Amino acid sequence: MSTYDSGNIFAKILRGEIPSHKVYEDGHALAFMDVMPQGTGHTLVIPKAPSRNILDADPQTLSQVMPVVQKIAIAAKEAFEADGVTVIQFNEPASGQTIYHLHFHVIPRFEGVALKPHSGTMEDQGILAANAKKLREALGA
Amino acid sequence: MSTYDSGNIFAKILRGEIPSHKVYEDGHALAFMDVMPQGTGHTLVIPKAPSRNILDADPQTLSQVMPVVQKIAIAAKEAFEADGVTVIQFNEPASGQTIYHLHFHVIPRFEGVALKPHSGTMEDQGILAANAKKLREALGA
Repeated sequence: MSTYDSGNIFAKILRGEIPSHKVYEDGHALAFMDVMPQGTGHTLVIPKAPSRNILDADPQTLSQVMPVVQKIAIAAKEAFEADGVTVIQFNEPASGQTIYHLHFHVIPRFEGVALKPHSGTMEDQGILAANAKKLREALGA
Repeated sequence: MSTYDSGNIFAKILRGEIPSHKVYEDGHALAFMDVMPQGTGHTLVIPKAPSRNILDADPQTLSQVMPVVQKIAIAAKEAFEADGVTVIQFNEPASGQTIYHLHFHVIPRFEGVALKPHSGTMEDQGILAANAKKLREALGA
């Protein structure tokens, strides 16, 4: 397994070097909109601690980030009046991982609407900003 | 959201009322082979604590089960010489959830091999038993 490369795009977001549509942040985790959503409201949750993926993460990091994944899943279902939520986490290229900082996809689901492909089309920034706002409101932030 | 129904198949597996190809068990979680695998070595990890899915789970339950998901992911990559691992967790029917006890799918991935459909074809019991054994060996159990 490759070691962690701190030049990855999520590490840059964590350091504030590039912008993101932030939804939630605490001492352990950050949540922000996926810029290539597989569905309306597709959000990413990442731990602040560096790891490539679940295979090399500190177990404690996983224990800390999962309640945040839950928080975002509940808020996303409410914010987008979704019928369900899919949580996906990819490890290594064979699984579809494209950015090598551990991340969880939280994707609101709607009856009869299939997921769009992973890493498909760049979403309009205005829509991402509006969706992030909806999520922050659902979180009571 | 519906309440938890203790008649679901995973609750029955936890109570030992129906058999499963067990891979791992501790005080908080159980891992066993998915009988309709989306790929070789497809394993399910469930908390022992009852919840319908991530939306109604106790956050502490999530913190306890996630290190087990990691343990199985690492062992599965080794046991099946996989190139990657996909972790998926479905919430509510619109997401594809078919059994209403919180569960995480841990699916070994291989370069160029797509996932088979969720809840597709029943696997041969001998193959499931052999794969569970491989996983237990990789876990050092």
